[in-house]
Amino acid sequence: MASVAPEVEKKEEEEQVVNPWEVSAGKGGIDYDKLVDQFGCQRLDAPLIDRIARLTGRPPHRFLRRGLFFAHRDLNEILDIYEKGDKFYLYTGRGPSSEALHLGHLVPFMFTKYLQDAFKVPLVIQLTDDEKFLWKNLTVEESKRLARENAKDIIACGFDVERTFIFSDFNFVGGAFYENMVKVARCVTYNKVVGIFGFTPEDHIGKISFPPVQAVPSFPSSFPKHFSGNDQLRCLIPCAIDQDPYFRMTRDVAPRIGYQKPALIESRFFPALQGENTKMSASDPNSAIYVTDSTKDIKTKVNKYAFSGGQDSVELHRKLGANLEVDVSIKYLNFFLEDDDELERIKKAYKEGRMLTGEVKQLLVTVLSEMVERHKRARARVTEEMVDAFMAVRPLPNMFG
Amino acid sequence: MASVAPEVEKKEEEEQVVNPWEVSAGKGGIDYDKLVDQFGCQRLDAPLIDRIARLTGRPPHRFLRRGLFFAHRDLNEILDIYEKGDKFYLYTGRGPSSEALHLGHLVPFMFTKYLQDAFKVPLVIQLTDDEKFLWKNLTVEESKRLARENAKDIIACGFDVERTFIFSDFNFVGGAFYENMVKVARCVTYNKVVGIFGFTPEDHIGKISFPPVQAVPSFPSSFPKHFSGNDQLRCLIPCAIDQDPYFRMTRDVAPRIGYQKPALIESRFFPALQGENTKMSASDPNSAIYVTDSTKDIKTKVNKYAFSGGQDSVELHRKLGANLEVDVSIKYLNFFLEDDDELERIKKAYKEGRMLTGEVKQLLVTVLSEMVERHKRARARVTEEMVDAFMAVRPLPNMFG
Repeated sequence: MASVAPEVEKKEEEEQVVNPWEVSAGKGGIDYDKLVDQFGCQRLDAPLIDRIARLTGRPPHRFLRRGLFFAHRDLNEILDIYEKGDKFYLYTGRGPSSEALHLGHLVPFMFTKYLQDAFKVPLVIQLTDDEKFLWKNLTVEESKRLARENAKDIIACGFDVERTFIFSDFNFVGGAFYENMVKVARCVTYNKVVGIFGFTPEDHIGKISFPPVQAVPSFPSSFPKHFSGNDQLRCLIPCAIDQDPYFRMTRDVAPRIGYQKPALIESRFFPALQGENTKMSASDPNSAIYVTDSTKDIKTKVNKYAFSGGQDSVELHRKLGANLEVDVSIKYLNFFLEDDDELERIKKAYKEGRMLTGEVKQLLVTVLSEMVERHKRARARVTEEMVDAFMAVRPLPNMFG
Repeated sequence: MASVAPEVEKKEEEEQVVNPWEVSAGKGGIDYDKLVDQFGCQRLDAPLIDRIARLTGRPPHRFLRRGLFFAHRDLNEILDIYEKGDKFYLYTGRGPSSEALHLGHLVPFMFTKYLQDAFKVPLVIQLTDDEKFLWKNLTVEESKRLARENAKDIIACGFDVERTFIFSDFNFVGGAFYENMVKVARCVTYNKVVGIFGFTPEDHIGKISFPPVQAVPSFPSSFPKHFSGNDQLRCLIPCAIDQDPYFRMTRDVAPRIGYQKPALIESRFFPALQGENTKMSASDPNSAIYVTDSTKDIKTKVNKYAFSGGQDSVELHRKLGANLEVDVSIKYLNFFLEDDDELERIKKAYKEGRMLTGEVKQLLVTVLSEMVERHKRARARVTEEMVDAFMAVRPLPNMFG
């Protein structure tokens, strides 16, 4: 799985390209409406969000309230079965290509934790170390090491060990999981994966072989130790919209091999500090805030690099106000500032020129520093034994408790 | 793996096609010389056979003496290391697509048993139940069941449980074996597998994903429980020449991922009863002798279907003698009659018209019946516990003993 924060390239031409390995924005940034139509998924509208709130008896997560998770497939069906008293499970993942996560990497996990808490359902988290070995110039050992290090950051997000299974592909592929991989592979032609993923004949067969690996955690029978006897349990996948191609393929195959289609709930991309159309690059540490950054790092990065929608001079800013559409500090607060009223006050004041960029950035530094410090403390408490516990192949003791 | 007895089709045009799933003879039958040149393997000549005899201190197997195993890759290197007192391991396999084996299926296992006994080396036997699921219209369960049933026939060939590991892909793929699959896959492009195996864009990605599965038993690190600490142990693969494409690919990849190239010793195809250019078909039980056939079945099949090189009338036969080149009974005796002198006597008498087809067939029925009865008795003694013992993932207790 790629993160919620893929490398976004701005293309000269208007055309936008979104797949699990490439996100190229058109001229005006990513057109999410176009993407929904192109992919054939559904918009996550207000009535559906209200229904989630009603069924879970808690306010919807800010990522829902603010349209950051904005699209879905069959989420209504998941809510139908939940309303009837039946259960489902969650599946998300990460491609462990780097040591330290940045804030964008945390987004799907924060949201997944909310879903797990709200619905009290089991969760499987796939670490696609095989994918990163295949796409990046890493050794198997390094990919596996990064998977385990990333697992610690994921655990630090607060998942419940009694209903969460974290696995690395290199360690877990085999048995029922491999059987499902082969079943999926038999249903998908080379032409089909070329159409979905844009592979070329010069791509290695490891890439062509990979989509079934990401597909099969959608099927409970891939986890016989965890979901024994629950082979028709529905699956809900929280992920960024760039992962949709995998699950379009999976949903196409599922009924042909006697399985339920997975449902999806899909997010927008988390922007780079330099703005939505710039590249968030692992090789440029100044393009993102990492969970290992100090408060000083965060302050420097936000002040120096966070793209501002404010005007060039204070006088002009007081007169014209900020352009919120392009202001990265506002976008980041939109993700991470919990208080809706406060966020609205800030946006209004900033838009009307009553607040300056520097003041907004100062607020953002406080919000991010608190969040990062909290994450660091939580991660420091994650022991090797806890990682082993989450990654153990075992029945989940309190799956639907 | 396909068997030593693939479905041979006679093509109208001269061109012959040999790959793991198709063997089409040219006008005059399979041209093995051309195949050796085309594939780039080496001829197994008399000095090499003499060297095997000298090093093992026993006469070479009749399959060697009679040129039935006729080609190799780097066999001389294997003999070099053996001569120096170092060891190697054997790898062979079978695609479990049918319940009952026919005699052609036994050929590589008979030869592999000879190699294991002669060199006292460990052996891994891959049952490619995943391959048969991908290529045939079988369920996963049926493929796995056939793999286990076929394992019983293989065990009945007399392998030494202290140095033999039999595994089904569906049960064994995972861990170090999967890591090696992914390493191989990263080194092979789609264009490359199209060139080697003739896949088309309408083929499913299961087929494109499969070659690494058959490649990696060539590497001892795929069996960490069995070959722990022997990661540079050389591998020798006895197989039919139609499997050469897999191992050409494997040998190409091996040095790029830091592994030794596997060596090969390759056989001709075992002919159908109706002759070398006809189809040996699972749907036509009269095209082959099965290990489940009764003596009566064998007698009927040989008498009725074994293509004769004899003349149309006794008078003409006495005068002209038999054409041994096309006579299937002689070909079968060549595989299974141990006594070289007796075989020569028969061939001479038959060729000179002193023996009639009926007499040769009667001899063949005796040889085959004894062999099949011996196999049946051995198979009846194979218990489920013995299958479990051969298939257990464990250090081989007496690997080089």
